Amino acid sequence: MAALQFWFEFASTYSYPAAWRIGSLTAASGVAVEWRPFLLGPIFHAQGWDDSPFNIYPAKGRYMWRDLERLCALHGIAWRKPSRFPRNGLLAARVACSIAEEPCCGEFTRRVYHANFAEDREISGAEVIASILDGLGQPSADVLARAESAENKERLRAQTEEAARLGIFGAPSFVVDGELFWGNDRLETAIEWARSR
Amino acid sequence: MAALQFWFEFASTYSYPAAWRIGSLTAASGVAVEWRPFLLGPIFHAQGWDDSPFNIYPAKGRYMWRDLERLCALHGIAWRKPSRFPRNGLLAARVACSIAEEPCCGEFTRRVYHANFAEDREISGAEVIASILDGLGQPSADVLARAESAENKERLRAQTEEAARLGIFGAPSFVVDGELFWGNDRLETAIEWARSR
Repeated sequence: MAALQFWFEFASTYSYPAAWRIGSLTAASGVAVEWRPFLLGPIFHAQGWDDSPFNIYPAKGRYMWRDLERLCALHGIAWRKPSRFPRNGLLAARVACSIAEEPCCGEFTRRVYHANFAEDREISGAEVIASILDGLGQPSADVLARAESAENKERLRAQTEEAARLGIFGAPSFVVDGELFWGNDRLETAIEWARSR
Repeated sequence: MAALQFWFEFASTYSYPAAWRIGSLTAASGVAVEWRPFLLGPIFHAQGWDDSPFNIYPAKGRYMWRDLERLCALHGIAWRKPSRFPRNGLLAARVACSIAEEPCCGEFTRRVYHANFAEDREISGAEVIASILDGLGQPSADVLARAESAENKERLRAQTEEAARLGIFGAPSFVVDGELFWGNDRLETAIEWARSR
């Protein structure tokens, strides 16, 4: 059985249902998840975009908001359209990067997505991130200091470069032994791919 | 129960598995299909694209070809990567538009997609389209003459404008009572939506 790399960006709308579904789906199949936060900004920039494609292409954006609302209803995931989109996920990504090997990374990730897409909270700020870490019983000041260290910033930068190298062009993406799957819709297929290796 | 409008463009790769799957899936649920060929060209043009986004954005294109190959394998649909992409689907769309209410429209549509994405045939030419019509026992010369009539050309043009009005930005799309679903991945959801109305 191969591990499943979950590549996500905190600003990404469809990464939200993926982050909420991945825990129970992989637990049921015994597949291990590797958390791979990265930044879509540089990847979109290389495609010539300086904003979310959902803002650049209004018809696509209108559809995405409606589709996500239906999708969350279907899966029983809480949903409120954020008053600001996209929110800057840099600090949250740095934290997730610094705790990627720790057991709390999954729950931290889910709670940040919930804050953004169900509670309409400003996840770009240190206060919201600190309150999520506190709620998980983590020493928020220490974790934030580690997240903002030069070494960890470089780690996230390198991880974003690796995403591009793997052919990732959007989020969420899943990688199993170099095989790429894009989108929340491919989560089950990617898990099955990992299970059968 | 509501009818399901299937909006498709013959150049569209993901419309191929949708066209092949829609028949048995809707038959199983008793949902009626309305065939809505349209042209992506004008819709992409309005988004600033003069080519398929799979050609404009190479990482997305590379992924699509691999994903489609996996998808066809999963569903047992024949697949060969076409040597030319996108092929011009104008003539095929005009024919489908002119026979949209006839029982042969579904099978004509499936065979054109098969010619493009499993046999690597040049569907833009009248010869290939005529041979498909002949294979269905249709009077190809008459059908092609009707397809190329001013009235039918205008019908396809109006249908493409309706697609834009409905918020369609890509293919395949499905519309049920004005509710839009985009992509082969949403076919089952759209059918369930139609079934429950």
